[in-house]
Amino acid sequence: MIEIITIGDELTCGRTADENSRFIAQELAVAGLGVSRIITVGDAVEGIIRALQDMLPGTRFVIATGGLGPTDDDRTAPAAAAAFGRTLGENREAMALMENRYREFGRAMPPAAVKQAVLPEGCRIIPNPVGTACGFSIDDGDRQFLFLPGVPEEVRAMTSGFLIPHILQASGSENCIVSRTLKVFGLWESQIHELLRGSLPATPAVSLGYYPQYPEVSLKITGTGRDRGAVEQEVEAFQHSISEIIGEYLYSLTGESLEEVVGALLNKRGETLAIAESCTGGLIAHRITGVPGSSGYFDRSVVVYSNRAKEALLQVPRELLDRHGAVSMPVARIMAQNVRQLAETTYGLAVTGIAGPGGGTPEKPVGTVFIGLSSAASTQARQYQFSGTREKIKIMTAQVALNLLKTFIQPRA
Amino acid sequence: MIEIITIGDELTCGRTADENSRFIAQELAVAGLGVSRIITVGDAVEGIIRALQDMLPGTRFVIATGGLGPTDDDRTAPAAAAAFGRTLGENREAMALMENRYREFGRAMPPAAVKQAVLPEGCRIIPNPVGTACGFSIDDGDRQFLFLPGVPEEVRAMTSGFLIPHILQASGSENCIVSRTLKVFGLWESQIHELLRGSLPATPAVSLGYYPQYPEVSLKITGTGRDRGAVEQEVEAFQHSISEIIGEYLYSLTGESLEEVVGALLNKRGETLAIAESCTGGLIAHRITGVPGSSGYFDRSVVVYSNRAKEALLQVPRELLDRHGAVSMPVARIMAQNVRQLAETTYGLAVTGIAGPGGGTPEKPVGTVFIGLSSAASTQARQYQFSGTREKIKIMTAQVALNLLKTFIQPRA
Repeated sequence: MIEIITIGDELTCGRTADENSRFIAQELAVAGLGVSRIITVGDAVEGIIRALQDMLPGTRFVIATGGLGPTDDDRTAPAAAAAFGRTLGENREAMALMENRYREFGRAMPPAAVKQAVLPEGCRIIPNPVGTACGFSIDDGDRQFLFLPGVPEEVRAMTSGFLIPHILQASGSENCIVSRTLKVFGLWESQIHELLRGSLPATPAVSLGYYPQYPEVSLKITGTGRDRGAVEQEVEAFQHSISEIIGEYLYSLTGESLEEVVGALLNKRGETLAIAESCTGGLIAHRITGVPGSSGYFDRSVVVYSNRAKEALLQVPRELLDRHGAVSMPVARIMAQNVRQLAETTYGLAVTGIAGPGGGTPEKPVGTVFIGLSSAASTQARQYQFSGTREKIKIMTAQVALNLLKTFIQPRA
Repeated sequence: MIEIITIGDELTCGRTADENSRFIAQELAVAGLGVSRIITVGDAVEGIIRALQDMLPGTRFVIATGGLGPTDDDRTAPAAAAAFGRTLGENREAMALMENRYREFGRAMPPAAVKQAVLPEGCRIIPNPVGTACGFSIDDGDRQFLFLPGVPEEVRAMTSGFLIPHILQASGSENCIVSRTLKVFGLWESQIHELLRGSLPATPAVSLGYYPQYPEVSLKITGTGRDRGAVEQEVEAFQHSISEIIGEYLYSLTGESLEEVVGALLNKRGETLAIAESCTGGLIAHRITGVPGSSGYFDRSVVVYSNRAKEALLQVPRELLDRHGAVSMPVARIMAQNVRQLAETTYGLAVTGIAGPGGGTPEKPVGTVFIGLSSAASTQARQYQFSGTREKIKIMTAQVALNLLKTFIQPRA
C-alpha cells in the first residue's frame, strides 16, 4: 500500500488547498495503485519526523511533498535525516543538477539555493524537470520514502514522469497503463452509473472513474496490463460499450472541453459563429474565446442586457419585446437570426433568460431560459427550465447553448 | 491541539478535493486555534478506527468529517463505536431531529435514512442546520471527538455555527472573535508582506492572514479577546495601519469582489456602464453580470473579436484599424468612447489586446493590452504589458479594467 504525506504550515492553517495529494492519489488510482492514508503536517521538524516514523503496517511506498525549498521553513530534508538516522550533507549530484538548471534558466544561482542540495546521506536523487529543487528517495527496511518538492507544477511533472512508472516497476509490475477520458453532458453521475451498471465488459484490467464537475461528468477509463496492444484493445472495447449505452451524451472521447469541440468543428468546416447573450452575460463568449485560435471562427458576441441594447444591436422589434417580453421564444429566435445576419456568420446562437435571484414571475420563474440557434437553412428556439443559484443558471445555460450548437453542426448518427 | 480526520474513498483516490479540512483549518486559524495534523482515510472501518485511536499525544479535540450518510459505504458511526468500545443504537434525539427536518423539507423520510440516527451510545448530538444527518461528539479520556457529515455545505454551516464557538468555550476560552477581510489588487503577496513588515501595531491579539488568488490577495485580520468592543477597536486600528501603508491598493474593506464594488458604486450614483471587449472575450461582462441586480446599471457589452465587428458595432473607422492595428491606443480610445455614446451610458470601458499564445509581433508581443475608459468629461486609454497563459492574460486584463473604472469613479483621497 501507499501513503502520502504533505508538508507545510500553509496547509494545516488552510491557507492553501492541498492540490498535490489529490493529484498524486488520482494518478495512482489511474495506475491501479491504492492510497491507504494521506497525512498533512506543518513545517515543524518534530511533526514531520513523527509522520515519517508512524506509517501503517502494510505500507510499501510513502510519497512526501513539500519542505524542500530554499527558505528557513523548508525542513523536510533535516527531518528525513533525523527520522532515518542519517547525516546531512551536500549532495554532489543534486548540486550539479541544480547548477545546470540555473544555467538553462540563464540566472545566477542564489546563495540560499545551496540548501536545496543538502540532503540525507545515501539518498537517491529524483530529478526535477521543471524547478530547481531535486527530489530524493530513501529506503528504510521494506519501505521506500519518496520526497518531492511542494510546487504543484513540479509535483505534476515528477508524478507522471517518475513516480508512477517507478512505483509500478519497483513493485514488480511490468504493466503499462492506457487511459482515456470521455466527457458527458446531459446525465448526472448517478444516472450514468445506473445506465452502465451490469452492461460493461467484465474486464478486471479495465476500470472506470467518475469525475463530476458541474454541469458535466468526466469518465476516465483506465486499462492496465503487460501487452500495450492488448490493453488498448480492451480499453477500446470498454469505451465502445459505454458509447453504445450513453453515446448521445458523450461530446468528447479525448477529454476536450465543449468549447474546444465546437471550435475544432467550426475550424474544420471553415464556418463562423456570432452570439447574442442576455442572461449568460458574456460567459458563452468567454468560454469560446478561451480556446487559442478562436479568432479564426468567432466573430462577435453582443451581450444585450437592456431592451435598448437588444433593439439597437440586434434589431429586435420593440413591438416583439412589448408583446412577448425579452425572455421569450420569439425574441430568442430573432436574436439568433439577426446576430447571424448582421455578423454574416454561418451560425447565430442566442440566449435570453432569468438568472435570478430576482426578476422571476409566476409565468416565467427564475431559471426560465430560451435558446435560439440560426443557420442559413433554419432558425429554431427552445425553452428550458433550470434551477439553482444565479451562477449555476448562467453555467448551465452556456453549456446547453454550446451543446445545442455542437449537436446541430454534427448530429449523432 | 486539534487534529482533523476526513473520511471517504473519494478522497483517497483523488476523485474529490478535500474542501472540508481546508475550510475547518481556515476557520480554526481565524479563531486562533492551530491544527497539528490532518489525516485522510478511506471508507474501510479498520482504517477509520485506526485513525481515531492513533492521535498525537497533545491532542484535545479531533474533528472528523464524512461517512455519516445513509448508504452502505458510510461507516463512521460503527467505526467510532468500535474505536471507543460503545454499542450502536438508534438515537432518539437524532431521530426526532431528522424527522423534523424531512417534515420541513416536505418530503417523506426514506427508510435508508434511519441508519443516520444509529449512533454510538452516550454520544452527544450536534444538530445539522442544513442537511438531514446529525453530527455527534464523544468524550474519550482528555479528548473530545467531534463527528460531522461530509457534505461541504453542511460542514461550513456546522463549523461556523457550532464547532468554533464550542471548541473556544470547551477549551476555557471566553474569547470572542472579530475578523475582517480586505481585498488587495496591484501588489503580490510578497510585496504586501515586505511593505507591512515592522509597520503594524504589535498587538498579540490580532493576526493577519494572506490568501492570494490570482490576480489579487485577500487579507484577513482576526482579533480575539474577552471584550468585543476592545477587540473591535484593535482590529479597526490594525486595519487603519494597513490602509495607511497600502491603502491605494485596497479596493474593499469588507471582502466584496471588484465587480461587486463597481456595481455598488454605479448603483448608488445612478450611473450606467457599457463595455467593448476584444481580448477578454466577454469575461468583463461575465463578471459584471455575476452580481445580482446588475441589470440596473449594466447596459451591454460588445465582444468584438473581428475587425468587421469593431466597425459595425462600434463604428471604429476602418482607416484607424488599418493605420494603427486593432490592438492600439487610438482603437481602445474610440471603442470606449463609441460604446458609451451608442449605449448612452455614463461610462464606456474598452479593452483590446493580444491574449496569445499566437498573434504576437516584436512591436506588440503577446500580453500587449490597451484599456480605454470614457465618460462625458473625458476619454483616456492606457497601455499595459501582461504575461502568462492566455487565461491569465484574460483574467488580468479584466481585473485591471474593472479596477481602472473603480478608481475613476471613486478616486482615492
